[in-house]
Amino acid sequence: MSNVVSTGPLPGSRKAYRGALRVPVREIELTNGQVVERYDTSGPYTETDFRPDLGNGLPKRDRTRTHPTQLLAARAGEVTTEMAYVAARENLPAELVRDEIAAGRAVIPANVNHPEAEPMIIGKRFLVKVNANIGTSAVTSSPAEEVEKMVWATRWGADTVMDLSTGPRIHETREWILRNSPVPIGTVPIYQALERVNGDPTALTWEIYRDVVVEQCEQGVDYMTVHAGVRMAYIPLTVGRKTGIVSRGGSILAAWCLAHHQENFLYTNFAELCEVLRTYDVTFSLGDGLRPGSVHDANDDAQLAELRTLGELTKVAKDHGVQTMIEGPGHVPMDKIAENVRLQQEWCDDAPFYTLGPLATDVAPGYDHITSAIGAAMIAWHGTAMLCYVTPKEHLGLPDRDDVKAGVIAYKIAAHAADVAKGHPGAQAHDDQLSDARFEFRWADQFALALDPETAQSFHDETLPAAPAKTAHFCSMCGPKFCSMRISHDLRAAPGMAEKSAEFRAAGNRIYLPVAQP
Amino acid sequence: MSNVVSTGPLPGSRKAYRGALRVPVREIELTNGQVVERYDTSGPYTETDFRPDLGNGLPKRDRTRTHPTQLLAARAGEVTTEMAYVAARENLPAELVRDEIAAGRAVIPANVNHPEAEPMIIGKRFLVKVNANIGTSAVTSSPAEEVEKMVWATRWGADTVMDLSTGPRIHETREWILRNSPVPIGTVPIYQALERVNGDPTALTWEIYRDVVVEQCEQGVDYMTVHAGVRMAYIPLTVGRKTGIVSRGGSILAAWCLAHHQENFLYTNFAELCEVLRTYDVTFSLGDGLRPGSVHDANDDAQLAELRTLGELTKVAKDHGVQTMIEGPGHVPMDKIAENVRLQQEWCDDAPFYTLGPLATDVAPGYDHITSAIGAAMIAWHGTAMLCYVTPKEHLGLPDRDDVKAGVIAYKIAAHAADVAKGHPGAQAHDDQLSDARFEFRWADQFALALDPETAQSFHDETLPAAPAKTAHFCSMCGPKFCSMRISHDLRAAPGMAEKSAEFRAAGNRIYLPVAQP
Repeated sequence: MSNVVSTGPLPGSRKAYRGALRVPVREIELTNGQVVERYDTSGPYTETDFRPDLGNGLPKRDRTRTHPTQLLAARAGEVTTEMAYVAARENLPAELVRDEIAAGRAVIPANVNHPEAEPMIIGKRFLVKVNANIGTSAVTSSPAEEVEKMVWATRWGADTVMDLSTGPRIHETREWILRNSPVPIGTVPIYQALERVNGDPTALTWEIYRDVVVEQCEQGVDYMTVHAGVRMAYIPLTVGRKTGIVSRGGSILAAWCLAHHQENFLYTNFAELCEVLRTYDVTFSLGDGLRPGSVHDANDDAQLAELRTLGELTKVAKDHGVQTMIEGPGHVPMDKIAENVRLQQEWCDDAPFYTLGPLATDVAPGYDHITSAIGAAMIAWHGTAMLCYVTPKEHLGLPDRDDVKAGVIAYKIAAHAADVAKGHPGAQAHDDQLSDARFEFRWADQFALALDPETAQSFHDETLPAAPAKTAHFCSMCGPKFCSMRISHDLRAAPGMAEKSAEFRAAGNRIYLPVAQP
Repeated sequence: MSNVVSTGPLPGSRKAYRGALRVPVREIELTNGQVVERYDTSGPYTETDFRPDLGNGLPKRDRTRTHPTQLLAARAGEVTTEMAYVAARENLPAELVRDEIAAGRAVIPANVNHPEAEPMIIGKRFLVKVNANIGTSAVTSSPAEEVEKMVWATRWGADTVMDLSTGPRIHETREWILRNSPVPIGTVPIYQALERVNGDPTALTWEIYRDVVVEQCEQGVDYMTVHAGVRMAYIPLTVGRKTGIVSRGGSILAAWCLAHHQENFLYTNFAELCEVLRTYDVTFSLGDGLRPGSVHDANDDAQLAELRTLGELTKVAKDHGVQTMIEGPGHVPMDKIAENVRLQQEWCDDAPFYTLGPLATDVAPGYDHITSAIGAAMIAWHGTAMLCYVTPKEHLGLPDRDDVKAGVIAYKIAAHAADVAKGHPGAQAHDDQLSDARFEFRWADQFALALDPETAQSFHDETLPAAPAKTAHFCSMCGPKFCSMRISHDLRAAPGMAEKSAEFRAAGNRIYLPVAQP
């Protein structure tokens, strides 16, 4: 089995750790002497000399706790180590972190049995987060290959990873991922439960499902998608849809309900499930099994009926002290996005929203990282706390390494665009640093500050590969004669410009001379 | 010189023409017997047996006119042939077309000397359009290669093309493009004017510029970017910016104003320019020479001062009977997009807005087709009539063929997402057709209906290349055991589903059973 995963810093960056809590950052040293920092989720893999030992996994953090869950600690007024860590990571007060968690508006998905992970927070007052899905299917890839996918996704900025593995080696694959992951790991336990009954949804039972959940809790899974809102009464509402039920978990549970003519066993046993998750401080990700699979089905009766039930279940989970977030669509046209967030926040008591895209149109298979980045940026601006990425292969096939990167980068763009639009403290500083480098023709800095330094530099190299071009005061787009930015520099040097600017502003910016010839 | 351009229909499509006006459509014959139509801009190049003759150009349409411009004809109550054509093309009443043009809310850019082009309309009541920029630089490509870029861009859906050529063969290149283009061609005349004075902005004169405009009008250019709003008094407002002036035309004119300490000669001679454009029915695209080049500079004093002036010039142009649209940014964070459109519409008398992106963040060079597709989709939803594409090479280098396609497809996504969100008649039918094909496992139809059938099919082929997979009731993402859509089909077949759905709706969709175990 190959033990090779991607290591070493990104071009122009180096890994550093801050303070007694050793909070990770990515430092970028610019050619003008400035050093800037980025939020970093890549774990020790991006240290300069890190030598991974996949068999033994990452070093473990100390985990002491005085309350079963972060939610109960926060309610008791305690700032846990994890809260202090994420506060330092986001440059925000620890008390804000504690209060948001206490109110159920944010979660720290950190299973007590996953001490390898670096604490992170999901909530609308914090940086918008991105999840990447990985996982073996019956016919592909080894556990070590899945570890590399996880490392690769976090290298480009994934904040959490969901292991959606199916097939015979599901437990072993998850073990490899958990022990080597610096980020929280999520799962959908119904997939493993279905493996236990040889793929026959009607053979599922609550007991089989619960055993799977306990096994995964013991292993260290940090958050779990649970489709407890797929109630029997809502299934007929999907009949008039364009695309029926598109959630795997949702369709499995719907098949079970109809076969037995009984209520969803996740719904009827939800309180017991809460007790299990509380024991390990595992976070609920209440799944939207009836999410729309086409813009036609967006915000329809089935989706909204389930969302109301998720709100009801959120209250039950919080009564049990269990951290909870809510999953969302799917496919939603732009005009229905704000409404979707509004209803989720209202009905689910402001629990963090975690959305898949949504795709703003159905017409572009092969480019659904783009169709969905549009929806993702908008829904995050309106209050979604975490975005589940979509890759270019969505609807068509299994993502490879390039697709994983394309999906993560598209979603980092969406998340950051939302942080900027929300006015998140410090978010626009990234834009400003890059724009300064651009205006000052510091090409190397522009690459290092880019979300993907490698691609930025390789595109520049295609037309201007020589070293002097990396400090030249023009690029190949316009060439030296036409460079507007160079002309701008000349303009700034013109005498009296600052005074004229001040005069204009003092006059109320209203110097509108008449047109000389009407 | 190579004479090879891309020809033949897209996979699964065939070219057809409707009615006496021979309005082009792309027909897609589905495997279920249904035939659907798409708006089509690709010209005769996508006919099955078309043999291009680049030396002689495309067949010419008859151009008769009773008024100098479409605007004057519309005001006189006339429905011109071009208006009837675009009405048929968009499945909307010809009177709506006429009224929107008469009010200045829409334009048909159709120079009387460009009879090769198929009429199209730009206005917020119509389909959102996409422009692709092409053009030689001093060191690259022949005229025939630029024709191929134009053909290639329209093959993937570009509605207009701007020729931004620089260098010695600028007239010849434009001639090749115009004679072979089925879509309107736009230019930025100041680029050619600058060539005439060997690249020295301070040597420009109104007379040199006017001669260039007349030459281009004679050739058949359909719309021209004119930076008449870059007034001398606004230039100092750019001093405090992150990125100064990023428009080439804007920086050239700013340099001229400061060197001569005189008002922009395009502003002072604007009325005469109107007379020239009216003669040929060339449409103004009033350029935003002071557009922001970073999110930091968005909606700032310089940008808004120029926008007010563009509004003033719009009125002058309309008084002369000249069709006019307004160019817009650039780089704008999501929270400032709606405001931008609102001000443009208010100050410019509802003239069509034509925006470059905008990029919603600056941090992702190499992916600016995505950062800008986010902004483009949103700004089009809010009322922008045409989007100027951005390719992955933006800020870094010259786009190649793949970049042109990536830019066009990203922008077709943005434009269509906006059409759907705006509720444009018939827009969502495309999504519904594709979603039906997806739900019914008609893989071949899903590819044919995709914006890019080739990429969709190639992604599917990567994991399931065999022919039977193209009708299989599952895909490689979940495999046969987990297919949610297949399970959905089984559910629909369950007895009594339709009745249950009706019952639920009759009860007000409010069947919320209590949680069995709290």
